[in-house]
Amino acid sequence: MFYLVIDILGTIAFAISGVLVALDKKLDPFGVFIVAFVTAVGGGTLRDLLLGNTPVTWLLQPIYLYTILITVVLAIIFRKQLKYLRTSLFMFDTIGIGLYTLAGVEKGLDANLIPVMCVVIGTITACFGGVIRDILCNEIPVIFRKEVYATACIIGAASYFLLLKLPIKPTYIQVICILVVITVRLLAVKFKIALPTIYHSVAIDETKE
Amino acid sequence: MFYLVIDILGTIAFAISGVLVALDKKLDPFGVFIVAFVTAVGGGTLRDLLLGNTPVTWLLQPIYLYTILITVVLAIIFRKQLKYLRTSLFMFDTIGIGLYTLAGVEKGLDANLIPVMCVVIGTITACFGGVIRDILCNEIPVIFRKEVYATACIIGAASYFLLLKLPIKPTYIQVICILVVITVRLLAVKFKIALPTIYHSVAIDETKE
Amino acid sequence: MFYLVIDILGTIAFAISGVLVALDKKLDPFGVFIVAFVTAVGGGTLRDLLLGNTPVTWLLQPIYLYTILITVVLAIIFRKQLKYLRTSLFMFDTIGIGLYTLAGVEKGLDANLIPVMCVVIGTITACFGGVIRDILCNEIPVIFRKEVYATACIIGAASYFLLLKLPIKPTYIQVICILVVITVRLLAVKFKIALPTIYHSVAIDETKE
Repeated sequence: MFYLVIDILGTIAFAISGVLVALDKKLDPFGVFIVAFVTAVGGGTLRDLLLGNTPVTWLLQPIYLYTILITVVLAIIFRKQLKYLRTSLFMFDTIGIGLYTLAGVEKGLDANLIPVMCVVIGTITACFGGVIRDILCNEIPVIFRKEVYATACIIGAASYFLLLKLPIKPTYIQVICILVVITVRLLAVKFKIALPTIYHSVAIDETKE
Repeated sequence: MFYLVIDILGTIAFAISGVLVALDKKLDPFGVFIVAFVTAVGGGTLRDLLLGNTPVTWLLQPIYLYTILITVVLAIIFRKQLKYLRTSLFMFDTIGIGLYTLAGVEKGLDANLIPVMCVVIGTITACFGGVIRDILCNEIPVIFRKEVYATACIIGAASYFLLLKLPIKPTYIQVICILVVITVRLLAVKFKIALPTIYHSVAIDETKE
Repeated sequence: MFYLVIDILGTIAFAISGVLVALDKKLDPFGVFIVAFVTAVGGGTLRDLLLGNTPVTWLLQPIYLYTILITVVLAIIFRKQLKYLRTSLFMFDTIGIGLYTLAGVEKGLDANLIPVMCVVIGTITACFGGVIRDILCNEIPVIFRKEVYATACIIGAASYFLLLKLPIKPTYIQVICILVVITVRLLAVKFKIALPTIYHSVAIDETKE
């Protein structure tokens, strides 16, 4: 129950972030819905496809579809008020990537992947909804440019496997994993930490045949 | 046999729509073929992947590959004449989305999905070839902006499940489903109905942290 | 062992080509890594998904992840020197597509596909990493515009099936298939052969309803 509530809150936050990007691109309501849907379920869908868990999760659990549908309708109606919810949305989103990371890690374990691949799957689950959103909206994915988003997921997922070696209850490990993701992201945003862009002197047309 | 003919006509129409977009982007013949191929089979491929029906359909039924290959060669040769075929192409395309919607709905039923997810799968089958075409050509997908394309598919697929509750023969239900998709699209184009773009006052950079 | 060495060299070359495109787009180190990773494993991943070989190969064989990680770190550190390695990189890349084509053809045979579909799968394996790289970087895929890349793969894969009809040892057929891909590409680059762009007089907005 606790999980479901957080999961739905994460889905709502991701869907809203999709609505905001889609509105900015002047899409019609159907386009807004698709972008919101893909943002919310895209990472989990890619995870399920890579692992071979089909039919993918959201086809079997209609609550995601309904949640996103209601979220999109409300977000469109109250689009002017959304800007006053910046902090709440950011917190939902941050909690969301924490939970999505954990969910991905555990799906990876279910598929008998080695720890490093579980970390990869956890990060994909949390981050690739946003990547697909940006591709659909014809943007270079934002997480490739200025977010520590993925770094937070990687550190959180790695902490899961470090903790597994200690005598700690599974439930505590899960909670700590989520909290690490959240903490890293909050600290990064607070102190404006971002990975630097790499200066490059290699023009692409010089190095290609 | 009847189905196969319509299915091939739909494939041809979708492939030609891919050729037209690809030519507009000045792609080479290989690029034109890939874009045409993806437009024609992309929706069905995404459906098969999401459901876990692998190898995907077109790998097992080479008629789609050959049909698209011949279509692309002819469409390139007769590209100047294509503009005189506007109405025919539009009709093929419209019949095509009707049939693709039905095919998707029935694949969803085969996978024991609930009706609402069958509607989703039917719409994906009919619409996502065009979405992938536009992504490959570096455009925001056209159906997110000004088509009632998807709406026609959703209404047609939904009518399938409404009719299932009535004492009607399955074959009639299938035909009606296709006709509903076609009718909605024809009416929408005739009366220039499109979903409105949503006015938004929320600048994206204001609402993101 | 021989295969593994060539496969790793191909992975390195593809990863470097991803790094170069990503640096050109001023991505952060995480973005550079993702683009390099997708370039190197994207074609094989799409192949595995279409065939239903899941979990996909790179999730089960961590050597690809580690190879790409080390390659990206070194490529970023020595980015200024990369331009002196143009010829070596081009050779790795060309050997890489030869091997990837062969690997795809044989995976297609394992899945009992007919020869023409094995050719398609081989070409997808070799070419679609670059396609996904370009989509992530918001470019129209370069192979759609000016490379004979795909043509070399198609000819090499087709030669595999022609040779199967002759009394030749399987190992020789494999080697010849790879050599055909390499030779076609080298000749095409040497003589600046590329598929021509098709002149088109059909404006897209004229032909769409």
